[in-house]
Amino acid sequence: MNETRIMQTCCSSLRHTTGFFLASMSPLYVPPPECLLKSFTVPRRYLFGPGPSNVPPRILTAGSQPMLGHLHAETIEIMDHIKSGIQYAFQTQNRMTLAVSGPGHAAMECAIFNSVECGDSVLIAVNGIWGERAAEIAERIGAKVNKIVTSAGSYFRNDEIEQALSKYKPVLFFLTHGESSTGVVHPIDGIGELCHRYNCLFLVDSVAALGGSPIYMDKQDIDIMYTGSQKVLNVPPGTAPISFSERACCRIFSRKTKPVSYFLDLSWLANYWGCDRKSARAYHHTGPVTALYSLREGLAILAETGLENSWKRHKDVAAYFHEGLERIGLKPFVEDKKARLPTVTTIVAPPGYDWREITGYIMKNHNIEISGGLGPSVGMVLRVGLMGCNSNKPYVDMILEALTDALKHCHKSKV
Amino acid sequence: MNETRIMQTCCSSLRHTTGFFLASMSPLYVPPPECLLKSFTVPRRYLFGPGPSNVPPRILTAGSQPMLGHLHAETIEIMDHIKSGIQYAFQTQNRMTLAVSGPGHAAMECAIFNSVECGDSVLIAVNGIWGERAAEIAERIGAKVNKIVTSAGSYFRNDEIEQALSKYKPVLFFLTHGESSTGVVHPIDGIGELCHRYNCLFLVDSVAALGGSPIYMDKQDIDIMYTGSQKVLNVPPGTAPISFSERACCRIFSRKTKPVSYFLDLSWLANYWGCDRKSARAYHHTGPVTALYSLREGLAILAETGLENSWKRHKDVAAYFHEGLERIGLKPFVEDKKARLPTVTTIVAPPGYDWREITGYIMKNHNIEISGGLGPSVGMVLRVGLMGCNSNKPYVDMILEALTDALKHCHKSKV
Repeated sequence: MNETRIMQTCCSSLRHTTGFFLASMSPLYVPPPECLLKSFTVPRRYLFGPGPSNVPPRILTAGSQPMLGHLHAETIEIMDHIKSGIQYAFQTQNRMTLAVSGPGHAAMECAIFNSVECGDSVLIAVNGIWGERAAEIAERIGAKVNKIVTSAGSYFRNDEIEQALSKYKPVLFFLTHGESSTGVVHPIDGIGELCHRYNCLFLVDSVAALGGSPIYMDKQDIDIMYTGSQKVLNVPPGTAPISFSERACCRIFSRKTKPVSYFLDLSWLANYWGCDRKSARAYHHTGPVTALYSLREGLAILAETGLENSWKRHKDVAAYFHEGLERIGLKPFVEDKKARLPTVTTIVAPPGYDWREITGYIMKNHNIEISGGLGPSVGMVLRVGLMGCNSNKPYVDMILEALTDALKHCHKSKV
Repeated sequence: MNETRIMQTCCSSLRHTTGFFLASMSPLYVPPPECLLKSFTVPRRYLFGPGPSNVPPRILTAGSQPMLGHLHAETIEIMDHIKSGIQYAFQTQNRMTLAVSGPGHAAMECAIFNSVECGDSVLIAVNGIWGERAAEIAERIGAKVNKIVTSAGSYFRNDEIEQALSKYKPVLFFLTHGESSTGVVHPIDGIGELCHRYNCLFLVDSVAALGGSPIYMDKQDIDIMYTGSQKVLNVPPGTAPISFSERACCRIFSRKTKPVSYFLDLSWLANYWGCDRKSARAYHHTGPVTALYSLREGLAILAETGLENSWKRHKDVAAYFHEGLERIGLKPFVEDKKARLPTVTTIVAPPGYDWREITGYIMKNHNIEISGGLGPSVGMVLRVGLMGCNSNKPYVDMILEALTDALKHCHKSKV
């Protein structure tokens, strides 16, 4: 410390010195808000929208354990467990596996910010809202973005993807695994191989599908994949698992410019999560310690359940739901049964009804959240998410009953 | 939905169709990790480092209430309460007040990403690590960054700041209120006025000081200010209150280019937090619902306590601590008493000792975290944070006892 400098500071600037505590002598002029002086309560509700899904008590309890330092040995051990849990859930042996300290959108930015430089060509598959978002993110950092677009409810053939890869020569191809806005689960096989043939990284958004629909990161040649905590994992939103292949890391760590975000810079995150083979972890940012406890617990439940059992349950429960829908006169939006996302079902908005009245009626009378469309599916569909602990047949019966009741009591125009 | 297209998809691409469930038939090859099949426990520990601080049971309980949708009426009401709580804590009437869904670093990026465009001139005051970080963030988005630098433990006079404003004509001036790496609380009076005279926005990082040291956002002409949840507010890390003046909003909403981050774009966040006078809130990202419960509770405790009481308690407890330090032969790093940060105290690293041995000894034998230096203060100081519920005299006595014990038992070289 420069003592001389401090002395000078105290003596030479009278104006400054007198101002030091001037403001602190003034009275407050924004009073304590009344609303904060009352306690608040939160209702219990069935969260059968596209997420967040309900959080089981076991996970809430895990997240309410005592706070630890973000670099304490126990916290680091929990982070290591989370890495193992993500490797299992993603079916990958990638060393570069971690959780972003933010929601799925932060993970989407982490993936794109790190793998794309200004001026790079990027190819985005748009068959719903998530492709649009990825394109917007890539555009903001100056990428040359090309899109292939298909209508809501459908998906891409591999030959269409290959044609675009050949035409645009992108460094990155973005695809949504579970398109929650349209209810489509996208086939993945063969695409990674195609990307690599064209010297392109394969990025998959599996926010809405992971744990509910099969995906094998390594076997399917995926280079970057992320998910959110608040879907099948039933963990509160706020953390986002992500993983990078060796191929992705090679490109990322040989880029010419720094990623625009320090907070999401993989070279820092890699060290913070102990993925970079350095012995010490440096302070980067303060991770969400208690949210990590919850994430660990959600991954533990998935490990106990078993991925294959979880996939099968989501598939069976969704099929049971889809049969029930037909029985009460409703129609799944995605006709191709194989392409129906097992976690989030889209239902053709019942003709003659206002979808808002239906979701409002069900919330008010059944304490159940279901939702309308999003992005390209607005006004076209109702969306029902049954994820993780919410994926079970008694809940399906409950929703079918609520829908039947809503169709009976909501206003129907004569069409 | 394009039905014809779906039919074509199913018929025309045999390779694709056969591959649809190919991977899902394969066995898993990353097994469920053993470490997740055991339960985990978290020790209770006194967190007297620079943060995160201990979280009182009341806040942990608030955060373990049932999950709600991120746009449910009750969640929006909680967000409104949070806005009021931040307005009180910041002493501002800014409409543009909200919490970023991430740690303090995300708020720092939110502030800089929105207020600075590529090529803009930015002035950063560096008297510790936070200025360095802000400079790095601004550089990454292509700003022309100029710094004024002073030694660890000291701060800037207003005439030095004015000189730099006049020389560099920045659009933004960054200053750290509570420099937790060096233990300095920076004077704020008059600086906002200076900035405005030079047509510059005044950005203040009050992560480590807010609630523990007086600051008046409106009265002190601050344009952008943010803090973290995990310091004086005693809330788990993962949310970061931030506020923008009308002047800041005018500049931000008339910028020519989009901010690099979609996740942190203020025009989206403004709508999500109901700050933009539009009637409906559109989906932007999924906010950390339960973390918002906790943040609301932390702000409620501050409102109940009263800002002035909180400021006074932190000041008194810090003074009591500093006297105690002198009594046991230790020396506060910041000589100028007025400039000592009441939330995080820096202590001159005891000569002849290895600081790592001291912090390790105290953790092992007293279950107390204190920390070494950070950035420019590494090796020079020990750091002790007493924030929010941790700011009380019995804890000071406990730390003094632990330090005395450590000085007795740790190895001392003959210097």
